[in-house]
Amino acid sequence: MNNNDTILLDHGAGGKLSHAMFSELILPLFDNGLLAKQDDGAVFEVPGGRMAFSTDSYTVDPIFFPGGDIGKLAVNGTVNDVAMCGAIPLYISVGLIIEEGMKIHDLRRILQSMARAAQKAGVRIVTGDTKVVPRGKVDKIFINTSGIGLVPAGVNVSGDRARPGDKVIVSGTIADHGVAILSEREGLKFDSDVKSDSAPLNHMVKRVLESGSPVHVLRDPTRGGMGTTLNEIAVQSKVGIRLFEDRLPVRGPVRAICEIVGFDPLYLANEGKLIAMVPGADAGNVLDIIRRDEFGKDAVIVGEVTDQEPGRVVLETLIGGTRVVDMHTGDQLPRIC
Amino acid sequence: MNNNDTILLDHGAGGKLSHAMFSELILPLFDNGLLAKQDDGAVFEVPGGRMAFSTDSYTVDPIFFPGGDIGKLAVNGTVNDVAMCGAIPLYISVGLIIEEGMKIHDLRRILQSMARAAQKAGVRIVTGDTKVVPRGKVDKIFINTSGIGLVPAGVNVSGDRARPGDKVIVSGTIADHGVAILSEREGLKFDSDVKSDSAPLNHMVKRVLESGSPVHVLRDPTRGGMGTTLNEIAVQSKVGIRLFEDRLPVRGPVRAICEIVGFDPLYLANEGKLIAMVPGADAGNVLDIIRRDEFGKDAVIVGEVTDQEPGRVVLETLIGGTRVVDMHTGDQLPRIC
Repeated sequence: MNNNDTILLDHGAGGKLSHAMFSELILPLFDNGLLAKQDDGAVFEVPGGRMAFSTDSYTVDPIFFPGGDIGKLAVNGTVNDVAMCGAIPLYISVGLIIEEGMKIHDLRRILQSMARAAQKAGVRIVTGDTKVVPRGKVDKIFINTSGIGLVPAGVNVSGDRARPGDKVIVSGTIADHGVAILSEREGLKFDSDVKSDSAPLNHMVKRVLESGSPVHVLRDPTRGGMGTTLNEIAVQSKVGIRLFEDRLPVRGPVRAICEIVGFDPLYLANEGKLIAMVPGADAGNVLDIIRRDEFGKDAVIVGEVTDQEPGRVVLETLIGGTRVVDMHTGDQLPRIC
Repeated sequence: MNNNDTILLDHGAGGKLSHAMFSELILPLFDNGLLAKQDDGAVFEVPGGRMAFSTDSYTVDPIFFPGGDIGKLAVNGTVNDVAMCGAIPLYISVGLIIEEGMKIHDLRRILQSMARAAQKAGVRIVTGDTKVVPRGKVDKIFINTSGIGLVPAGVNVSGDRARPGDKVIVSGTIADHGVAILSEREGLKFDSDVKSDSAPLNHMVKRVLESGSPVHVLRDPTRGGMGTTLNEIAVQSKVGIRLFEDRLPVRGPVRAICEIVGFDPLYLANEGKLIAMVPGADAGNVLDIIRRDEFGKDAVIVGEVTDQEPGRVVLETLIGGTRVVDMHTGDQLPRIC
């Protein structure tokens, strides 16, 4: 990255420019074994066990949308990032940056939503910080949440552990969050009830881990969607990933809106879905466990890990051909989370 | 707080309105024993020991100033908040929210500064998140840092543990950060070299704790300054605090600028100072340890904890009278950190 360049929206979009910024600018400065793993959070040893630690800032626009709001998103997002480390999330911090002039009514609604989300996930919000900046210096409210959790003994989940023969499970329909935000933001009235899928996945993850099934990878395909997340895993694990288009779970109204506006559901954000990669022999068992969770009813096996073309994700299309699912370069939707 | 009210800058200033918002809006929603303590971070048990967890968002304007920048501030600030829990900080998370169009040159400078600060403090930046928002939706860059650390066995430090007979130690001159920001922001040319005091205090704290001296309270008087922090402690501990004006360490140029612009150094932010409250018998020993630290050379005993007028801070003035040091209501300087 050249010193005279400027930051573009795509540097924060989770795609190619984001990865370039991370590997060229950030990683060389903060190099350590933990950050370099590029998982959803860091896992490290402490006396008595291992802990996971993750952070995310939420700048979603609009702050209220069908199925949730920025507060629910912020709690569930970090709960899920900690869970994707194979951990049981316990404690959450909250950093609020509020624009002067915000209505107390709106702030209260967001905080109530955070309290409900924390209760549902079974985590405690234990520390926080509030900043108020003058009008026009921030757009309404931005929220950072960080979270820590305990990694049970024997669990070893990471984006670099996918192996040929693993099945790729997705815990439900994709692109719901992205389309909900798009519809609300653009005032699109499709006469549909597309809602954000924002949900805590930690209970689902806990039950999968407790089953003793050897889970290799857990990842929630948020910003950048499933296409980007699978590309990250393919690179980290040096494996190929093959998806089957006919198995991709996309709700009818979501598919319809995507077709109208020309978006690919594979690159739209999810906020209550996970991708699990598990050995073929265990996939059925893990799928059953996920399906018994209230947020996993539509879980399916959508693909498999191969030793073909390491680092590449390929889609077997409905008409029997194949196409490469690349990491996206431009952002379809900025400020999605 | 009324639903029809709006958020004011003072809700984020650390003074009376901040405390009202916390106790009326936030605490009832997220009530748990940890958040209610209102310390700089939360301390909780994990298998094998106790951990401290803290978070802070930085929105300082300008982002570069004499003695530091927003990156240095963000690392040192959270390192210090964790240390003020009586903990050894270990791991830091970083959440960047960047305005589209920021120069890579500036971002690199900030990140380099964060890397240097982390190295100096001996902490590792292990997880992070980067968001880019469209031009005008955030002012240049906001940074959240969260941190976790280990609390050594036997240490029990909290804002509610001040006891009559304790001495009040401050680790050096006050108001340097506030005046540095003010000078830079307003383009004030006082022909002085007032610099931010941003510094890591964790090594100092570690040595104090290792000495075995029974430290009751540790707190870094950042936003709201020493006046606000001491009021918080007086309320939390239900004690009186008596300060001696002739002992307050304020650099000459800082005092001069405060007099010119009409600010009280007691309410201006510090970013590399701590207040320690320790039993009178141990105060000399703790003071010696603090003075041997590179950031504690100017440490002094500035006051004492009493059983008079619990919840109140009183200043014995230079001319022999006394005045109440109240918690401030209006913010002297928004976006100070």
